[in-house]
Amino acid sequence: MSYVHPYRDAEFVLRHLVDFDALCATAGLDEVNADLAVAILEEAAKLGSEVLAPLNRVGDQEGARMDAQGVEETPGFKEAYGQFAESGWLSLSAAEEVGGQNLPNALNTAVNEIWHSANMAFALCPMLSQGAMESIAHHADETLQALYLPRLATGEWTGTMNLTEPDAGSDLAAIKCKAIPDGDHYRISGQKIFITWGDHRMTENIVHLVLARLPDAPPGVKGISLFIVPKVLVEENGDLGAPNQVRCLSLEHKLGIHGSPTCVMEFDAAIGYLVGEPNKGLAYMFTMMNHARQAVGLQGLSISERAYQGALQYAQERLQGTRRDGSRVAIIEYPDVRRMLMTMKSATEAMRALAMVASAEVDRFRYASDPAEKASHFARLELFTPIVKGWLTEMSQELTSLGIQVYGGMGYVEETGAAQHYRDARILTIYEGTTGIQALDFIGRKTLSNNGEALQLLLDEMQSTAEALRSSGYPDASLVAALDQSLEHGVKARAWILEQAASDRDLAGSASFNFLMLFGYLCGGWLMAREALQARALSEAGEGDPSFLEAKMTTARFYCEHLLPRTQSYLAAVLAGSDSIMALTVDQF
Amino acid sequence: MSYVHPYRDAEFVLRHLVDFDALCATAGLDEVNADLAVAILEEAAKLGSEVLAPLNRVGDQEGARMDAQGVEETPGFKEAYGQFAESGWLSLSAAEEVGGQNLPNALNTAVNEIWHSANMAFALCPMLSQGAMESIAHHADETLQALYLPRLATGEWTGTMNLTEPDAGSDLAAIKCKAIPDGDHYRISGQKIFITWGDHRMTENIVHLVLARLPDAPPGVKGISLFIVPKVLVEENGDLGAPNQVRCLSLEHKLGIHGSPTCVMEFDAAIGYLVGEPNKGLAYMFTMMNHARQAVGLQGLSISERAYQGALQYAQERLQGTRRDGSRVAIIEYPDVRRMLMTMKSATEAMRALAMVASAEVDRFRYASDPAEKASHFARLELFTPIVKGWLTEMSQELTSLGIQVYGGMGYVEETGAAQHYRDARILTIYEGTTGIQALDFIGRKTLSNNGEALQLLLDEMQSTAEALRSSGYPDASLVAALDQSLEHGVKARAWILEQAASDRDLAGSASFNFLMLFGYLCGGWLMAREALQARALSEAGEGDPSFLEAKMTTARFYCEHLLPRTQSYLAAVLAGSDSIMALTVDQF
Repeated sequence: MSYVHPYRDAEFVLRHLVDFDALCATAGLDEVNADLAVAILEEAAKLGSEVLAPLNRVGDQEGARMDAQGVEETPGFKEAYGQFAESGWLSLSAAEEVGGQNLPNALNTAVNEIWHSANMAFALCPMLSQGAMESIAHHADETLQALYLPRLATGEWTGTMNLTEPDAGSDLAAIKCKAIPDGDHYRISGQKIFITWGDHRMTENIVHLVLARLPDAPPGVKGISLFIVPKVLVEENGDLGAPNQVRCLSLEHKLGIHGSPTCVMEFDAAIGYLVGEPNKGLAYMFTMMNHARQAVGLQGLSISERAYQGALQYAQERLQGTRRDGSRVAIIEYPDVRRMLMTMKSATEAMRALAMVASAEVDRFRYASDPAEKASHFARLELFTPIVKGWLTEMSQELTSLGIQVYGGMGYVEETGAAQHYRDARILTIYEGTTGIQALDFIGRKTLSNNGEALQLLLDEMQSTAEALRSSGYPDASLVAALDQSLEHGVKARAWILEQAASDRDLAGSASFNFLMLFGYLCGGWLMAREALQARALSEAGEGDPSFLEAKMTTARFYCEHLLPRTQSYLAAVLAGSDSIMALTVDQF
Repeated sequence: MSYVHPYRDAEFVLRHLVDFDALCATAGLDEVNADLAVAILEEAAKLGSEVLAPLNRVGDQEGARMDAQGVEETPGFKEAYGQFAESGWLSLSAAEEVGGQNLPNALNTAVNEIWHSANMAFALCPMLSQGAMESIAHHADETLQALYLPRLATGEWTGTMNLTEPDAGSDLAAIKCKAIPDGDHYRISGQKIFITWGDHRMTENIVHLVLARLPDAPPGVKGISLFIVPKVLVEENGDLGAPNQVRCLSLEHKLGIHGSPTCVMEFDAAIGYLVGEPNKGLAYMFTMMNHARQAVGLQGLSISERAYQGALQYAQERLQGTRRDGSRVAIIEYPDVRRMLMTMKSATEAMRALAMVASAEVDRFRYASDPAEKASHFARLELFTPIVKGWLTEMSQELTSLGIQVYGGMGYVEETGAAQHYRDARILTIYEGTTGIQALDFIGRKTLSNNGEALQLLLDEMQSTAEALRSSGYPDASLVAALDQSLEHGVKARAWILEQAASDRDLAGSASFNFLMLFGYLCGGWLMAREALQARALSEAGEGDPSFLEAKMTTARFYCEHLLPRTQSYLAAVLAGSDSIMALTVDQF
């Protein structure tokens, strides 16, 4: 199944929701604007469709393998990676000093959507390199930066994140990996699991970022430090030296993303270099969490978009049933198939809107000069991140499942490709912090800890959109009513949580998932409403393609009529509190 | 991951919801009662846990293979099948005349839950044999019955259903397979796809039931006839003769149920025998549909139960986080993990309740002597069937997905087994009629066509339960309120559909899925409320295990507080009508 970049929707969001030109102007990026962005997206779409997408099924069927020399990636990936790196895609948002192009994160995100749609297992590799670059750029000293950043930016080397250990998953406090000082460096020992792209032969070197404990480190999360541990040692002049004591012990046999090697890594007194200060590893990880978690949320969008394209094509081609005149009917004409396709289409558009709007907050925070403005963009970014990660990835489960359902029996056959999207998507609610972790972050650190202020500001903005709908006489009453009603659900949920959480220590954890999902759907509804408002304004001004704008308004209406009302069920579950969740003893299960 | 039959819940449902003793008394089955049923379930549970469950992962990893001699099933399956057949499990509900045990369908269903939990791919084979036996027993003449039924009942032979063709999936009207008269038999030619257990070496013969067209058949569904086509010809004296012209052309590579061979079958002028009258094949299929569809719904329960058991065990054993005293915390103590486990537990119990109550309608219909009573049980059976098939299988998607989520990263690794349940479950909303087909059946043939009368009678019964809760002073106000509210949603949805469907030909199809899901959750809530009422009555009478009964009431409350409110969202989607579903042109997608 081929992949085509949904360029019209991407451009619409970039221009009319993200307000990309204004963002670039504020940032002083004089040569950057939406026209350039569209041109860059076109280039990326070519590489994605022509080079990466055809390797998606290959990666699924011929996943990475291991031999005595370590891990060998899927045949064809090395050549594709070479082309990818050569075209400079890794350095899109990196700083100019290290050879980067210094383009906005919003544009980088729009581009990344393409890689993940085309070949998510492949795209995990550059995604992790970008994460490693960000950590190093923010926290490592100049020497380390000079040694490692330029060759990560060119893609000459790739990067990884080594956090999880067998007994330390969601609970990073339990990390046991050790770092012993040894001259100007450290010796790192221990085992890390679930290390994505932990080994491969696409590049000469791999830069591992590793969480470990110094000998005198305090217990728990306050005693974790961050280290650079290269696969091959790097001399002071930048030349590659001897191999380091790092190796992949084994590969996991996974439900999906077979093209992405998931490694058990062993560090055996491997030479490592401290990033920043001792015992600040977790804080450093947190600064890149907004990036990494939004990136995984984006994967949820990307794989849903790909699943939608497959289902749509099948529904247009598959004939079932016969008209009176003897002609056969394409299944897209059946209402229930349309319901599934409209669910996929409208949710995907809502997810894209949220992913892009959240990604632009990274830029707005970065480029804001006024401290208050900077703080408010940071708060919004922090608020959005768990919703983007949690809601988009949860949605991708339903949407890739619908992707199979539209195909019927053929969807269950692996050759179709629909099943691969479903299997690949299933990791998204787990890695980079499970949905449970996102939900706790959202209700705790992002809501309760600031007394719900950040959330109130977002709700206020949503109310403005609702008022704009009314004052502009927006014609679809059902859309306006649904947004109003769901806003009320959001207001109630927030107020109730703030009121009750103090008196019930299990409440936040019990309500967190439903609270997160409620606001996910609400964000989607709010942004679809904003898109609909824009579409109507353009349409009335005689700008743009009338058919596209009309479809945008209809799709927004479908979302508000069919998906947004789910906020009611989530609210009910929130208000049910912790009692029936906590009541059973372990024996009673 | 081992499997343990949830015998306490099964027994509770059989005694207190199905009212098994009264059912057997009415049926004149004097020696059958709940005590016997429990003893039979214990025997089945032994075979399931000790023989079938250990082969579940083997079947996944070493699925059926093909060579020049046809299909060879997973190693170990043949021996397990031999044991299974020898113990007489296939003939549990078959008539005594053909060597069956004539036990109620409700008991057979409770037993079948075990097989599907233990090894769903394996259990598909006897499930299809039972379906074939039912077709032959109801519609074939005595000669065919005498030749084929006894050896299907002993399990000496297995049976299959050959309906689907490449161009005829949900649309059976498009069937092209041909049957040419040839003396006392017919010659069947054509290709059938997605034939479950279409070939294997576990038995000497396989009895294929095949839909095909006679030369003079009218077009469409009125021209389809049903044939018996044995893999090996059967002489008049019952001896096996020459091989028939039937073979498996290839096996599908599927997302799951790898242990179950899914065959493309070729019939090349194969000898076949007409079942019943010409051109009545579809009607004959319909008479066994209640059986087959409820059986697939039951699979949704079974696989959810198995997934729940795995997740529960992991949550009890997996430690993450540390208490102040240094001891580590099992993840079952975290509210969000409990939310997932309670969702799995409560939904599974609701599904079991519905599956069992619906299965007993088969018996009540069969044994009713009063024609009006017989008709009312038939109507209820017809109404329940699409809900059991549709709702239970849709729920199993969410529940097996939660089964992975509880495991976190380990859930994505195939060794754990959680991923297999998720992959296996994905077929359930597709085969034996997709959810879309069930939903259309429910809203059309089962509701609109009788002006909603059957549904009204069900709603009335639910109202009685709600009143019983109130009049008994049931202590959990939230449970009572949730049931009342969802009942209102059901009443509204029914009324609105009856009012609007005539004026909008796309409405039934547009609303059908949401209409079905609304009533699925409502049925679950109603039956959980009935269970809770019973649990309280027993508890107050000092009967039964107080801890089990208390857990039953808490679980019912959780269901009503957390899952039942979803009826609101489904109602909203129903009331949204067909407009935004049908509005886009094909080009606008």
